[in-house]
Amino acid sequence: MSPRTLIAFVGLGPIGRSTLSYALFRPGLEVVAACDPAPDLAGRTLASIVSGAPASVRVAPSLDALAKLPAGTVAILCTQSHVPQVAATIEALVRARLAVVTSCEEMVHPRWRHPDWAERVDALAREHGVALLGTGVNPGFVLDLLPATLSGVALRVDGVKCERVVDAATRRGPLQQKVGAGRTAAEFRVEVAAGRLGHIGLPESAALLCEALRFGLPEVRETIEPVVAAAAIETPFVRVAKGGVAGLDHRLVAKAPGGTVEMTLQMYLGAPSTHDRLELAGEPPLVLQVEGGTPGDLATVAALLNAAPAMAALAPGLRSVLDAPPPVCRFRG
Amino acid sequence: MSPRTLIAFVGLGPIGRSTLSYALFRPGLEVVAACDPAPDLAGRTLASIVSGAPASVRVAPSLDALAKLPAGTVAILCTQSHVPQVAATIEALVRARLAVVTSCEEMVHPRWRHPDWAERVDALAREHGVALLGTGVNPGFVLDLLPATLSGVALRVDGVKCERVVDAATRRGPLQQKVGAGRTAAEFRVEVAAGRLGHIGLPESAALLCEALRFGLPEVRETIEPVVAAAAIETPFVRVAKGGVAGLDHRLVAKAPGGTVEMTLQMYLGAPSTHDRLELAGEPPLVLQVEGGTPGDLATVAALLNAAPAMAALAPGLRSVLDAPPPVCRFRG
Repeated sequence: MSPRTLIAFVGLGPIGRSTLSYALFRPGLEVVAACDPAPDLAGRTLASIVSGAPASVRVAPSLDALAKLPAGTVAILCTQSHVPQVAATIEALVRARLAVVTSCEEMVHPRWRHPDWAERVDALAREHGVALLGTGVNPGFVLDLLPATLSGVALRVDGVKCERVVDAATRRGPLQQKVGAGRTAAEFRVEVAAGRLGHIGLPESAALLCEALRFGLPEVRETIEPVVAAAAIETPFVRVAKGGVAGLDHRLVAKAPGGTVEMTLQMYLGAPSTHDRLELAGEPPLVLQVEGGTPGDLATVAALLNAAPAMAALAPGLRSVLDAPPPVCRFRG
Repeated sequence: MSPRTLIAFVGLGPIGRSTLSYALFRPGLEVVAACDPAPDLAGRTLASIVSGAPASVRVAPSLDALAKLPAGTVAILCTQSHVPQVAATIEALVRARLAVVTSCEEMVHPRWRHPDWAERVDALAREHGVALLGTGVNPGFVLDLLPATLSGVALRVDGVKCERVVDAATRRGPLQQKVGAGRTAAEFRVEVAAGRLGHIGLPESAALLCEALRFGLPEVRETIEPVVAAAAIETPFVRVAKGGVAGLDHRLVAKAPGGTVEMTLQMYLGAPSTHDRLELAGEPPLVLQVEGGTPGDLATVAALLNAAPAMAALAPGLRSVLDAPPPVCRFRG
């Protein structure tokens, strides 16, 4: 059997709590610490937050409490989506010699938007002998790791088209809000312009794929348009009138010297067919479909929990899902 | 740009030649040596065997010629399917400090049938600082790497069902013979019993998957049955009368303490729907389909060529496709 991996949770929002709840069923993981500054969490035992979690572990209000954890401890960081929001936390964790696996979307490929910081944190992680990895379902799997893996049996890839269609009515409330369901088209556009609406990480997936396929540096264009409800829809979380916004149609084209990556992400209430579809143009052409799609929230939690016990085997530094071995399901240890 | 990878071809049968022909289009690869003892090949220039291949490289009749190649050279070994047939060659290549990537089916997971040899060659490779990897489309991708990768977004996997259906009429002559097309049912059974017919590597894929998913050691049962032609079929390579054997239906069940892996491989003339289908039972259930299937011969060549430039980054020793990063398409360098 593999040795147990000690886990410290950093951030106990919805994804962090869900990850904690599933971590309890993994014989290979031992939850030894947690940190969240939220006033309604700090100081509480994990058992009072997630049923079955250790009563002996209290949520620390600051990262200082994590400084004395044993070498090899892995921090599971689930707080924010953008690198500037998590950079100081990651640096502190690295200085405490914790490996970090995170659902922060931009951390799937931080070199794309934050190359200087990525270089610094890579050096810092090497210096402290720990690995950093951003993962999840999207970004982190469906639109980057999966097409890259499929390309492994291609002689030549000239272009990649990825399509992810999600019926947002089957997802949690925050996701329904995140896709703009219930807004007017005008509100939708204001929110998009302010960067408060839309999926985060599409350019990171595309740039990572362009790098892996040696397409060269891409020029990336994104559009986020509302999907208008053809009929009234109501979910436990939101009510959309006919003509209101049911969700979003997020598209990206990444043109690089060696090839083009196109991505379509449609997430709206009532989408008729939830699925992921990948098409690789080249020799041979390859088409892959995940029927029913890769379930968003569960798959992100799974990606974090499957990556955690594999962190110790990664070379120190900033890693990506494409330079790590495939994160197989580690439910059994 | 990545540095060029020096390549030595060992074995210039159909797969070796095809791999050589595609290697010529890869800027990251330089073919520096070749070896094949066949009397019609030894001594000839590569250019006389594959158009465009270097005229400066002659096919050596023995491995001795590879002993002086620079460190970091990768041998692409395409000769036989079973470990005992390639063991001495692999040991000689390792002693010459060549990394080895091979299409030998059993080398995808040699610990399954040949644990003692696998342990010895692992130690030998570590001692000489080179990595060994078995890869290909099947085994090596469709029924092992792909389901394992898909499991990376699963919280729990209880079982795996893989199905690969190939219309053998679309494949090369040797493959049509390998699946038994054109035999009588009686001949088919004699050939199966003698181990001369059927797919090689299914137990290796299943055992690798069981190991990756921590299912524990499986008990493996295989059956190979003929698929009978409902109507007469003729291809450029074989003629099958109505009631004759069109191909094979190869099934495997691997029962392990933690879960069951089931595989169905149907390869016969006139199979109605060429596809690969993977189903992971668990939380969440996941279903993936490669539409039109992963093309056999091209994908094996691609897997070899994509793995070759990545060999230098692997830790020395016996590696598997599951402990190496995904072998992305390296057409562009």
